[in-house]
Amino acid sequence: MSVGVENDVEVTREEKQARLAETYERVRGFTMRLAEPLAVEDLVIQSMPDVSPTKWHLAHTTWFFETFILKQVPDYQPFHRHYEYLFNSYYNGVGEQFPRAKRGLLSRPTVSEVFQYRQRVDGAMMMWLKDGILSENVLSLIELGLHHEQQHQELILTDIKHVLSQHPLFPVYDGSLHLHESQMVRKRSSLAFSSGLYEIGHSGAGFAYDNEGPRHRVYLNNFQVDDRLITNGEFIGFLEDGGYSRPELWLSMGWTHLVENGWDAPMYWTRLDREWHTFTLVGLRAVDENAPVTHLSFFEADAFARWAGRRLPSEAEWEIAARGETVAGRFVDTLLGQKEVPHPASHDDATGLPSRQFYGDVWEWTSSPYTPYPGFKPTEGAVGEYNGKFMCNQYVLRGGSCATSSDHIRPTYRNFFPPEARWQFSGLRLAD
Amino acid sequence: MSVGVENDVEVTREEKQARLAETYERVRGFTMRLAEPLAVEDLVIQSMPDVSPTKWHLAHTTWFFETFILKQVPDYQPFHRHYEYLFNSYYNGVGEQFPRAKRGLLSRPTVSEVFQYRQRVDGAMMMWLKDGILSENVLSLIELGLHHEQQHQELILTDIKHVLSQHPLFPVYDGSLHLHESQMVRKRSSLAFSSGLYEIGHSGAGFAYDNEGPRHRVYLNNFQVDDRLITNGEFIGFLEDGGYSRPELWLSMGWTHLVENGWDAPMYWTRLDREWHTFTLVGLRAVDENAPVTHLSFFEADAFARWAGRRLPSEAEWEIAARGETVAGRFVDTLLGQKEVPHPASHDDATGLPSRQFYGDVWEWTSSPYTPYPGFKPTEGAVGEYNGKFMCNQYVLRGGSCATSSDHIRPTYRNFFPPEARWQFSGLRLAD
Amino acid sequence: MSVGVENDVEVTREEKQARLAETYERVRGFTMRLAEPLAVEDLVIQSMPDVSPTKWHLAHTTWFFETFILKQVPDYQPFHRHYEYLFNSYYNGVGEQFPRAKRGLLSRPTVSEVFQYRQRVDGAMMMWLKDGILSENVLSLIELGLHHEQQHQELILTDIKHVLSQHPLFPVYDGSLHLHESQMVRKRSSLAFSSGLYEIGHSGAGFAYDNEGPRHRVYLNNFQVDDRLITNGEFIGFLEDGGYSRPELWLSMGWTHLVENGWDAPMYWTRLDREWHTFTLVGLRAVDENAPVTHLSFFEADAFARWAGRRLPSEAEWEIAARGETVAGRFVDTLLGQKEVPHPASHDDATGLPSRQFYGDVWEWTSSPYTPYPGFKPTEGAVGEYNGKFMCNQYVLRGGSCATSSDHIRPTYRNFFPPEARWQFSGLRLAD
Amino acid sequence: MSVGVENDVEVTREEKQARLAETYERVRGFTMRLAEPLAVEDLVIQSMPDVSPTKWHLAHTTWFFETFILKQVPDYQPFHRHYEYLFNSYYNGVGEQFPRAKRGLLSRPTVSEVFQYRQRVDGAMMMWLKDGILSENVLSLIELGLHHEQQHQELILTDIKHVLSQHPLFPVYDGSLHLHESQMVRKRSSLAFSSGLYEIGHSGAGFAYDNEGPRHRVYLNNFQVDDRLITNGEFIGFLEDGGYSRPELWLSMGWTHLVENGWDAPMYWTRLDREWHTFTLVGLRAVDENAPVTHLSFFEADAFARWAGRRLPSEAEWEIAARGETVAGRFVDTLLGQKEVPHPASHDDATGLPSRQFYGDVWEWTSSPYTPYPGFKPTEGAVGEYNGKFMCNQYVLRGGSCATSSDHIRPTYRNFFPPEARWQFSGLRLAD
Repeated sequence: MSVGVENDVEVTREEKQARLAETYERVRGFTMRLAEPLAVEDLVIQSMPDVSPTKWHLAHTTWFFETFILKQVPDYQPFHRHYEYLFNSYYNGVGEQFPRAKRGLLSRPTVSEVFQYRQRVDGAMMMWLKDGILSENVLSLIELGLHHEQQHQELILTDIKHVLSQHPLFPVYDGSLHLHESQMVRKRSSLAFSSGLYEIGHSGAGFAYDNEGPRHRVYLNNFQVDDRLITNGEFIGFLEDGGYSRPELWLSMGWTHLVENGWDAPMYWTRLDREWHTFTLVGLRAVDENAPVTHLSFFEADAFARWAGRRLPSEAEWEIAARGETVAGRFVDTLLGQKEVPHPASHDDATGLPSRQFYGDVWEWTSSPYTPYPGFKPTEGAVGEYNGKFMCNQYVLRGGSCATSSDHIRPTYRNFFPPEARWQFSGLRLAD
Repeated sequence: MSVGVENDVEVTREEKQARLAETYERVRGFTMRLAEPLAVEDLVIQSMPDVSPTKWHLAHTTWFFETFILKQVPDYQPFHRHYEYLFNSYYNGVGEQFPRAKRGLLSRPTVSEVFQYRQRVDGAMMMWLKDGILSENVLSLIELGLHHEQQHQELILTDIKHVLSQHPLFPVYDGSLHLHESQMVRKRSSLAFSSGLYEIGHSGAGFAYDNEGPRHRVYLNNFQVDDRLITNGEFIGFLEDGGYSRPELWLSMGWTHLVENGWDAPMYWTRLDREWHTFTLVGLRAVDENAPVTHLSFFEADAFARWAGRRLPSEAEWEIAARGETVAGRFVDTLLGQKEVPHPASHDDATGLPSRQFYGDVWEWTSSPYTPYPGFKPTEGAVGEYNGKFMCNQYVLRGGSCATSSDHIRPTYRNFFPPEARWQFSGLRLAD
Repeated sequence: MSVGVENDVEVTREEKQARLAETYERVRGFTMRLAEPLAVEDLVIQSMPDVSPTKWHLAHTTWFFETFILKQVPDYQPFHRHYEYLFNSYYNGVGEQFPRAKRGLLSRPTVSEVFQYRQRVDGAMMMWLKDGILSENVLSLIELGLHHEQQHQELILTDIKHVLSQHPLFPVYDGSLHLHESQMVRKRSSLAFSSGLYEIGHSGAGFAYDNEGPRHRVYLNNFQVDDRLITNGEFIGFLEDGGYSRPELWLSMGWTHLVENGWDAPMYWTRLDREWHTFTLVGLRAVDENAPVTHLSFFEADAFARWAGRRLPSEAEWEIAARGETVAGRFVDTLLGQKEVPHPASHDDATGLPSRQFYGDVWEWTSSPYTPYPGFKPTEGAVGEYNGKFMCNQYVLRGGSCATSSDHIRPTYRNFFPPEARWQFSGLRLAD
Repeated sequence: MSVGVENDVEVTREEKQARLAETYERVRGFTMRLAEPLAVEDLVIQSMPDVSPTKWHLAHTTWFFETFILKQVPDYQPFHRHYEYLFNSYYNGVGEQFPRAKRGLLSRPTVSEVFQYRQRVDGAMMMWLKDGILSENVLSLIELGLHHEQQHQELILTDIKHVLSQHPLFPVYDGSLHLHESQMVRKRSSLAFSSGLYEIGHSGAGFAYDNEGPRHRVYLNNFQVDDRLITNGEFIGFLEDGGYSRPELWLSMGWTHLVENGWDAPMYWTRLDREWHTFTLVGLRAVDENAPVTHLSFFEADAFARWAGRRLPSEAEWEIAARGETVAGRFVDTLLGQKEVPHPASHDDATGLPSRQFYGDVWEWTSSPYTPYPGFKPTEGAVGEYNGKFMCNQYVLRGGSCATSSDHIRPTYRNFFPPEARWQFSGLRLAD
C-alpha cells in the first residue's frame, strides 16, 4: 500500500500529509461502503467469540484514531467518555476493555450513533490533516490507523459471512453482486529455488507492520513452490480418498479437533442433492471445482499436503517465491468495483497471463509458526501491543485474499491465525 | 382476565366473539406499546439462553395465532414458509424448532418485517373475528393465544431488562417513566387459617390454563400467612446478618449455586458509595427499603425464610389465603397508564386500604414444586405442550407482578420457574 | 430395621444398648464383607462425581461414629487429626470438607490404614457400648450411624458397579455369586384404593429418619396401584415402539437430557448380537425379560408410564398401597447369604405366594418431588444436615432394592435422587 | 545415551546386541526402582488428563516391547489379548486406544498383574537378546524402546509428583531421600557467539530420535547465552515486582491463561508464614533461593525474560552454546544413587568447576516452536507416530532435568510441551 508514500521516491512531509488526507477519506469511506448493504439487525450480532459485530468494527476503527491520534490534539473532546472502554480491543496500555466475547450484548450506541461517531472523528481528523502541521510520528500513526482499518474491513466481511451463515435461511450480504464465472484451471507446475542465504522481511521505505522486520538472513535448502493455489476440485480428491477419516494424514491436535467438531469438509460446505455446496456472500452455491479451495484450517491444509506427498512452504520460502511477482490479483476493492462478490475464483490476470495467485483470492497457510523475527522489537507505546503479544500458537499466512484491499498487501506481510481457524478466506499452495 | 367472558353470566357465542375481537386488538396493541421505546438494536439481542430477543417475542406470539388458528382457515397463505420453524418455541407437535439458545443469531427477518408479519396476521384475525362464525374451539384457542401473548409481554419486559443490564452503561428502557414514590411500609402481621379439607384449583367458567385444574381437595394443617410482602429493608437485615455466607441457611443446591455464581445480593443489586443500588427499567437507582424485594431466586427466598425462623407458604396455602382478596394491585397496564415504571413499590391500594399485595408487584415463590394436580390431563393437540411437559425441577409462583397485566391474573394462576431463576420480578411472603 | 428396638414392646435402656452392640458388630462387619472381593486398585477409583471410592465409604462411615459419638467421649484421641476434613461428606456444622469430586485423588490413607481406622473406632465403640452407660441421645446417634452405614453399603455396591462398568473388559465384582434363575412373571393387575383422608409418615416407636415425619394427613382421590413391578420385557415394548425417539412421551427436561447424553436404553444396557445385554455385578449378561427393569432415571420411568397411558404413583399412594404388605423381598443380606448377586429378578416370595415386589429388587420412582412433610423440623445439630438440605430438584423413591439390607427398609422410608440419576437400582410400578 | 553404541567406534552387531541386553536389564530395572517406594493406591490415580497412573506407565512401556518387537517373534503369545488396546498410547497404526483421559478408571489389571506382565515380556526379550540373532532393524527398535522407557521414567516422577500434590496432606514419594544442600550461586554472565552459518541437529552415529534430524544449516545473528540457569531468588524478584499482575509482560495467551487459572507463582508454590514454599517429592519445603526455578510454563519463562529486558534463546542458539559443554549435571540416576531427591539445586560440577547447568536440573524453555527440521521424515511404520504428529502448538525444551537419566540426553535432544505446561521440571536461561 502506498498510504501517502512512494517506496522509492523521497517525498516531503507536506506531500505525505496531503496524500494521507486523500487516503484517509478513501479508506474510511470504503468501510462505510462495506456496511451499506446490511440491515441494522445484521450489524449487532456476534455469532462466536472470534467474530465481532459490524457495528463494533465501525466504532473500534474510529476509536483507534480518536485514542492514538486525536487525544494528542489540545482541547479535543472525546465523542463519548465511555467509548474508550467499550471499543478498546486489547490495548492494556490504554486501559481496561469490555470483554471481547460479549460485544454482541452492546445494544448501545445504536448504529446511527456509531455513524455520528465516525463523522465527528472524521471531521476532526480531516481538519487536522488539512490545516495542521503533523509530526512524522503522528503521520505514521495515521498511516497505521488506516492499515488497521483495512484489516478490519476484511474482518467485517469474514465476520458478517459467519453471522449470516448461522441463519438457517442463508441470507445474502449483497444481492447486487455476482460470482465470477469459472475458467478451466491450468495444470500445476513448480517454481524451483536454490539453496543458500536469503534475506526476508521488510526494510527501507514504505509502510510495514512492526512484525515484518527486522529484515534478516535465513538459510534455505533447495525448494520448490507450486505456481498456483490448490483448487476445490483437487481438495475433493482428498476428501473422496477418505481425507477426513484417516488419522495418519493429520497432526494429532488436528485430528482431535476434527473429531470433536465433526469436521468432514471445509467450513461452509454442505452436501445438497449429492453435490457439494458452499455458503458465499451471495448465498449457497455449488462448489466451483476450478476455484481455489478456501475456509480451510491449517490442520486441513497440512493434512492435504501430507496426503499429496508434499508439504506447505515456510513463510521464508513463500516470500522468496512471491517477491518476483507483481502484487496483483483478486482484491476486495477491485472486485466490488466490478460488482463481483469477494470470493476466490479461477482466473488469469488482467494482462491475460496465467496468474500464479500469490496475491489475492485466499490467504495461504505456511508451515511457519508466528514468531518474532531475530531482533524484533515492538513499536513503543500502547500500539506496540498490535502484533507482538500474539506470537504464540498461531501460524503465518501470506498473500492476502479476495477480502483484502489491493493497497494493503506486500510480499513481507505476515497475517496469522490459530491452526484451527477457518472463517477467514484461507487456502493453500504446495511446496517441496 | 375476562377475555370475552364473564365468570358467572351466560354469554352467547356471538357476544363472546365480539368481545374477543375487542380484546384481541387491545392485547396485541399493548405488545407493540411495550416495544415502542426500544431501538432496533435492542430488539435483536439475546443476553442469556433464558432470554429471547424482543423481536423474537413479537414474531412468536404472532406465530401462535398463525399456527394454531389461521392455518385452519381455508386458503390462508402463511406469511413466510420458514417462520413455522423459526418462531416455534417448543411445540414438537408442530415440528422442529430453531434452537432456543441461538435466537440472538437470527438477523432476519428484520424488525420491520416482523411488524409487517404482525399486521398481516392481525388483519386476517380481525377479518375472521369480525365476519366469520367461529367455533367454540377456535374461540378458546384465540383466548389462549391472547393469554399467551400477555405472558410474553411480561417476558418482553423482564428479558429486555436483562439485556440492558448487561450493558456497562445501564441504558434506560423508557426515559419518560418515573419510579413510584416510596411510602412507609406498615408492620407485618399474620392471617390465620384453620386445618381442614380445602379445595383449590380452577373450575367452572372463565379462562384458565390446563395446569390450574382439576379443582381438587387438599388437607391443610393450621397455617398462617403474612399480610404483606417482604421488603428490601427486611432483606437487607438478612444480608447484613451474613445471609449470603452462612451455608446452614441454604438448601445444599442453593449454596452450591451461590458459590459457583458469586451471589452476594439479589440480582441487579450493586454497591455504590456504600449504598445498595439496583438496576431498574429506568436505570440504576438506590434500593428503596420500603419496596418489596425482587429478583430473588427460590433459593434466596427459602434461605431468607429459614433465617427468619419461618417458611414459604405452599401454593395451596397461598391460594386459600389469597382467594378472599380482590384481584387488585400494581400491574403493568395501569402502571404504564400512569407513566410509572414497572417496578415493585410500597403502596396502599386505590381505596386507601392497606394492600396485602397478594396480586401485582412481585411473583411470590411458594414452597411447592410444580407438579400436575391429581387427575391433570394436558389439553389435546400440540397446545397440550403448553404447560405439562415442564413439570419438573421448577417451583410454583403466585400472584402476578408489576410486569403482569391486570386481566391476566387469577387466584388459581400457577407460574413456574427453576429455583435458580432470578430475572423475573420474583419475591416472597412468609408463612408458618 | 430393629436396631435395638421393637416397634411395640417397651425395652429398657440396658436392653437397647445391648442390642445395639450386637447390631453394631453385625452392620460394621457387613460393610467389610462387601469390600472383601475387591482389589485395592478397585477401592481407590472415582468414576464420576456422584460415585465415591469404596475406600472413602469405608472411612466416611467410620468418621461418622468418630465425629458424632466418640468425640463426646472424654480423652478420646482421633485416629488422625486430618480425617475430620478428609472424610466429612457435607456437614458444614462439623467444618470444611475435601471436595466431593476429588475423592478419587486421595491416594492416602491406604486401604490398610483405613482398615486400621475402622478397627480402632470399632474397638472404642464396642468398649463404650459394652461397658459404658450411654444416654438415650447417644444411643439414638449410634442407631442413626448404623442406618447411615447401611445406606453407604448400598452405595458401595452401586458405586463399584459404576466403576467396574467403565472398564472396557467389564470386570466382575465377585465371581462366586450367581444370577437368580428367571421365572415366568405373572400378569399385572391393579390394587384399588378409595378416595379419602389418609395418614402417612412415621410416628411412634422404631427408628426413622427425620424426613419420614411428622405423620400427617393427606387427601387422596380414588387410585389404583399395580401389583408388581414393570419388567425388562415390558420396557423393551416401550423401546421398540420408539420410546427413546418420541419427544411427546417425555418431560421437556428429560428429552433434553436424553438428546445431550445419547440415551437409547436403560443404563448399562448394550446391544450385542442383536440382543440386549446389561452389565451386572457378575459381568455382561443377556437381559432377562421377566426381571424388573432397573437403572432407569425418573425421566425414563415417567416416559414409560405416559406411553402406557398410566402414571407413577405419588409417594402417599405408594405408602398406602404398601403398608399392608409384609416387608419382605430380595435384599442384599439374604441374597449374599444365598450366594446370589444383588440384581433384580422375577420371583415369588418365600411362602410361595406371588410377590408384589413392594420391597427389595428396585427402588420405585414416585411422582413426588422430595419436599418436607408439613411441620418438618430437621434434627438438632450437625446431623440435621442429613436430609433436609437436599429437598430440592429430587424425586422420592420407595421400597428398597436388591442392594438394601432387609432391616433397613420401612413403609415410610423416603429415598431421593435427582430425576436424571440412573446408577442406583431404580425401577417403577404403574398407577392410575 | 550410548545404549549399546559408541559414537565414534565401529562395533559389531554381536557386540551391539550384547550391550543392548545389558542396557535392557538396567533400564527396565530402573523403572521398577522408581515405582518401588509407592503404595498400590498411588499407582492407580490419574490427577489430570496429562498425567497417567504409574501403573499405566509400567504397562505401556512393556506394551511397547511386546507390540513393536515381540510380535515379530514367531509363536509369541501376547500376555493378554486386550492389552494391545488398553496400553496403546496414541499409535493409530497399531489400532484403537483406550481414551487417555480415562486411564485412571482402569482398575484392572492390578499392579501385581502388571508386574507379571513386565516379567513375562522381560523374560522373552532377554531370551531373544541373549540367544537370538537380531537384525539391525530390531536392534534399533529395542534401542528406541529403551529410550522410550527412559522418557516414561521421567513422566513417572513428574506425574506422581502431581498426583501427590493434589492430596491436602502432601504425601512424600520416598522418605529416604534428602534434598541437596543449598550452595551460594555465583553471578550470571554471558557466553557470546558470532553471527554466521551453523549446523544443528543430529547426524552420524549414536541414537537419536527422528525429530533431531536432519542435521541442517541455520543462519544466526550475533547472540549471547547466560552461563547458568535463573534461580528461585531471581524469579522472586520478578514476582515481587508485580510480575504476575502486569499484562504488558506477558503474551496475550499467557495472560489469559494466568487470569483463568489464577496463577500467581510457579506451580507447586504456596505461601506459608510469609515465606514461599514448594511441594517436592519429599513434601513441602521452603523455596531455596539459590536453586534453579522450576515448574514454569513457557508463558512464565517468556514473561520473566521480557521483565529482565532479555529473551529466551532459540533452540539453535541453545544447541550451539551447549555443544561445547560436557554432558554432565544432576540426573535422576546419579541423584537416586546418592539418596538425593530429584529436584533442581545450586551446585558446582564434580570436577569443582562452576556448572553452566546446560544439562540436568531443569528442562530449559527455548523460544522455538516445535517444528520439523527441513527435510524431516518420520520413521517408517507405526513408530513414525512417535514425534512428528505432535509438531503443533508446542515449544522446544532442551538439556534434560533432574528427572532425566544421564544416558538419555544429548546436545541435539528436543523435548516439547505446550506453552501452558508446568508439571515438568522446566525452567529457563536468558539470552540476547
